[in-house]
Amino acid sequence: MSKKGMLLVGHGSTMPYNKELIESTAKMIAAQTPEFVVKCGFMNINKPSIKESLAEFSKENIDALVVVPLFLAKGVHIEKDIPGEIGLPEGTKKGTFGLNGKTIPLVYADPIGIDPLLAELMVKNAHKALAHV
Amino acid sequence: MSKKGMLLVGHGSTMPYNKELIESTAKMIAAQTPEFVVKCGFMNINKPSIKESLAEFSKENIDALVVVPLFLAKGVHIEKDIPGEIGLPEGTKKGTFGLNGKTIPLVYADPIGIDPLLAELMVKNAHKALAHV
Repeated sequence: MSKKGMLLVGHGSTMPYNKELIESTAKMIAAQTPEFVVKCGFMNINKPSIKESLAEFSKENIDALVVVPLFLAKGVHIEKDIPGEIGLPEGTKKGTFGLNGKTIPLVYADPIGIDPLLAELMVKNAHKALAHV
Repeated sequence: MSKKGMLLVGHGSTMPYNKELIESTAKMIAAQTPEFVVKCGFMNINKPSIKESLAEFSKENIDALVVVPLFLAKGVHIEKDIPGEIGLPEGTKKGTFGLNGKTIPLVYADPIGIDPLLAELMVKNAHKALAHV
């Protein structure tokens, strides 16, 4: 089966919660979606950095790489900082990635954003809290 | 039907994206879940503030109020700042809310956190981006 790389990008934090969220979500995705080789990379503070994690993909047998920012919404990190780290000119969502001498497509996904699944998650957390009333 | 109040709390931002995310998610929840009277409140910058929005609930016919932070993960905002705004001592998740002379339960829900729905959302965004390869 041809696999795809997924780089799940986190903001990074001096507290442990952002790193735990990104790493645990990456494990869930890898367990449920065998089409993806999943790695994490952090913009700030935590390791591996985005560039370190990108470099690790050059050893993988993948035919495309998708960079998925685990951020709530657009903003300067999504529009400027992460594109800079992954070698995409600002405003573009498609580029290439060098893999053992060949090039594969690199695409940049949207952050969480406005989505029915997010609404569902918030309602789920609300119901959990209300169960203790 | 007895209704419940849901205060969806956002971080707030000088850019429009956080406010759009919170307000659009609140609309989705209200449309899909008629048991909730949904309002938004922002910790910083945007209006209404958490306290302004809480005050608005005192006019509603609800029998419980749940405060749901639309944040990625725990951290100082979740553990200190928002509890301070909603009158909960740090570390507690349950309190009361004064409503036209009576008191109703107030509960504090978790942020997004580690959840299969979040993994599903990230995979969905990855597939959308890969559709352009």
